[in-house]
Amino acid sequence: MKVDKDDQRIFFDRPIVAWSITLLIIYSVICFSIDTLPNLDKSTTIFLHYSEIIIVSIFTVEYLYRLYLAENKTKFIFSFYGLIDLLAILPFYVATAIDLRTLRLMRLLRLARLLKLARYNQALLRFSKALFSVKEELIIFSIASLVLLYLSAVGIYHFENSAQPEVFRSIFDCLWWAVATLTTVGYGDIYPITIGGRIFTFVILMIGLGLIAVPTGIVASALSDVRKQPEN
Amino acid sequence: MKVDKDDQRIFFDRPIVAWSITLLIIYSVICFSIDTLPNLDKSTTIFLHYSEIIIVSIFTVEYLYRLYLAENKTKFIFSFYGLIDLLAILPFYVATAIDLRTLRLMRLLRLARLLKLARYNQALLRFSKALFSVKEELIIFSIASLVLLYLSAVGIYHFENSAQPEVFRSIFDCLWWAVATLTTVGYGDIYPITIGGRIFTFVILMIGLGLIAVPTGIVASALSDVRKQPEN
Amino acid sequence: MKVDKDDQRIFFDRPIVAWSITLLIIYSVICFSIDTLPNLDKSTTIFLHYSEIIIVSIFTVEYLYRLYLAENKTKFIFSFYGLIDLLAILPFYVATAIDLRTLRLMRLLRLARLLKLARYNQALLRFSKALFSVKEELIIFSIASLVLLYLSAVGIYHFENSAQPEVFRSIFDCLWWAVATLTTVGYGDIYPITIGGRIFTFVILMIGLGLIAVPTGIVASALSDVRKQPEN
Amino acid sequence: MKVDKDDQRIFFDRPIVAWSITLLIIYSVICFSIDTLPNLDKSTTIFLHYSEIIIVSIFTVEYLYRLYLAENKTKFIFSFYGLIDLLAILPFYVATAIDLRTLRLMRLLRLARLLKLARYNQALLRFSKALFSVKEELIIFSIASLVLLYLSAVGIYHFENSAQPEVFRSIFDCLWWAVATLTTVGYGDIYPITIGGRIFTFVILMIGLGLIAVPTGIVASALSDVRKQPEN
Repeated sequence: MKVDKDDQRIFFDRPIVAWSITLLIIYSVICFSIDTLPNLDKSTTIFLHYSEIIIVSIFTVEYLYRLYLAENKTKFIFSFYGLIDLLAILPFYVATAIDLRTLRLMRLLRLARLLKLARYNQALLRFSKALFSVKEELIIFSIASLVLLYLSAVGIYHFENSAQPEVFRSIFDCLWWAVATLTTVGYGDIYPITIGGRIFTFVILMIGLGLIAVPTGIVASALSDVRKQPEN
Repeated sequence: MKVDKDDQRIFFDRPIVAWSITLLIIYSVICFSIDTLPNLDKSTTIFLHYSEIIIVSIFTVEYLYRLYLAENKTKFIFSFYGLIDLLAILPFYVATAIDLRTLRLMRLLRLARLLKLARYNQALLRFSKALFSVKEELIIFSIASLVLLYLSAVGIYHFENSAQPEVFRSIFDCLWWAVATLTTVGYGDIYPITIGGRIFTFVILMIGLGLIAVPTGIVASALSDVRKQPEN
Repeated sequence: MKVDKDDQRIFFDRPIVAWSITLLIIYSVICFSIDTLPNLDKSTTIFLHYSEIIIVSIFTVEYLYRLYLAENKTKFIFSFYGLIDLLAILPFYVATAIDLRTLRLMRLLRLARLLKLARYNQALLRFSKALFSVKEELIIFSIASLVLLYLSAVGIYHFENSAQPEVFRSIFDCLWWAVATLTTVGYGDIYPITIGGRIFTFVILMIGLGLIAVPTGIVASALSDVRKQPEN
Repeated sequence: MKVDKDDQRIFFDRPIVAWSITLLIIYSVICFSIDTLPNLDKSTTIFLHYSEIIIVSIFTVEYLYRLYLAENKTKFIFSFYGLIDLLAILPFYVATAIDLRTLRLMRLLRLARLLKLARYNQALLRFSKALFSVKEELIIFSIASLVLLYLSAVGIYHFENSAQPEVFRSIFDCLWWAVATLTTVGYGDIYPITIGGRIFTFVILMIGLGLIAVPTGIVASALSDVRKQPEN
């Protein structure tokens, strides 16, 4: 019996099975996206509904089969991937049983299916190893970035609040400006117009671009080191 | 006879010939660009038409000469550069023979001429070698970026859809926002206005900037390694 | 007596104390931010006022205790952290004693509390070491960036001033455009519309992106070198 | 006599002299910037005029002194710095002698003074050495970037021209869009609105960000290598 299960366990490692499940996850994600479109016609809605039923059915069968194959049932249910597999199907059953209005938030949980993609990928290990090796630097730079964001917000509040009281209303609006500016996104919904505010923006950008970009360089060089290690 | 062809084969490797063809390609690209300008006067249109005829004539002669020089005719026609050379001249003959309205799409194929520039450049090999050595990392980061883009779109849809139903209409509009934000382009046509949406944007940017920037660092360090190899 | 003080000096190094002070600093910063919100109701204003009194009281007790523990009183008062600790509490006492209208500027000094976070962090040393080792490169690139910013401003002034006299009014407005463009923030409040101005922007961006991004790479590689040193 | 000149030649290497000239250059640049401000009052204009006379006088004396010190007069006049020094003073004399309307363009030449800053800086050598060692890569990536920019422009023209004929008028407008997008500046004056155009933008950004960012990484690592060389 145990030997049989070991044989069957290889089932999910077969490329054809792994790819089928991946495609099904992508298909379910596309259905979820189409479902958010406004003014959907009747036939599409019905089609999406039946798609949902079929997807959940297949995922349910998969979940039960995995549970059957597991040596330690309880351990599987409470394992990371066991919980994700459960979350991928649970919203459907819960949503139709209880109040439908909570459905909207529940729907987000359905996206847990996406995380299943990670199951078939071992190479993320190397990346997490690299991240772990530069843990301290990342924490320091995160704190420094947060402090800089806050100081930028206070500074720009001081310069722009009197000139544009409706745009730079409070420190919180200024924080939004600091985020959009220091990440160089620059939507253009909020920007300084005074000379002081513009010079301040320049100084902050000179400091901030370096501060925010350095961690990327650290991670890249750590990843490069981890990749070289097996060669030694 | 075979020796004669070998001598002639060097023809296309001569700097003067290579540069002439490159300049002709650039000239044809400029003509194509000018052709898209609205309200062109009659004389310019005629000039562009005759330019096109001359360019295609030269490229046709070049193609036939290359075909004549090739040892294996069939192999040349179906080789990568053989097909590109054919695509660079074919649209002209096909467009004037059949319906002119399909011309517009056909025109894009004309740009295949640009790819011919690659023919004269050997140094791209080093870059493709570097890319190949970090293939796995690039695939993982591409998948992770796509997953992050999708999760960002779902998240912002949840926060902003009720506040700006006309802007953040569906997951697809939110995906466009995610692309414009995580690449830090930030056109400013679509941005969050709720507190939740703004905090979410901040968190997503902190994670996303690193994720999207790391592959660049990986490619750069791989390229640096490839460049050092001949020195060993 | 001296031994007693040495024992007490460990007090501020205890994790529980360090974390309590950090949390109090964060709490005071949040209070300061909320205080800038327009249209605050009466009860919130009162709450914030009493919060301020309690925060300042605790920081005052902390300051006096640190002063008591210090071997050399004068040295502590005029030390970097001694001054920051003083600046964190002084604005409150001064603001209530003298004219309230200067309060607004004084408030910024209150943020000095944020700098106290640095006290509990030793790992910044490595970063400052890396920065010091590439000092010369950073100065050169800073000067080069400033020169490029200025030349960009003059160039775009030449191209755009006649086409958009209200937007590109003077070199100073053009400098603001140069800052927003070369850092790729691109708010969209000021951008070229002439062909010359756009080609100039392209050329400047090609040169400028490299120039501004290189220092980041230098710092990252210097930091990577510093991290490897203890392993030797 | 020759010994006397050698002694005097050290004059320009003295820190006090070098800094004085640098400050004078910065002062003249600030004057030039203020001069572009619209609606300047009479007294400021007069002040700027006299400043200009004094600056040019000092630079003229400096130029003549350098000429006097030079062993080979002709060689100095036609040397790189000799010409820059001349260009820094010539516009003033030429502008007042001939037509004043050409003054505006001539003024740009005055900025040549900025280049004089480079004279006092030896450390740029290391950077130019690093640039030279990766010359080939930089040329390839520049060509690849230009090709990508052009293909992006053609692609977006195909997708957006029919939907926004006034914005994406021709390949040239599309090239401007490509520059603003691939450098992630994103002013927001021109952006795709069709689904096809948005997906195309996403694909182009995924390829383009890497392509444009890699050269920066190459230069940074080359600079890091050059800095390590003297240690060997």
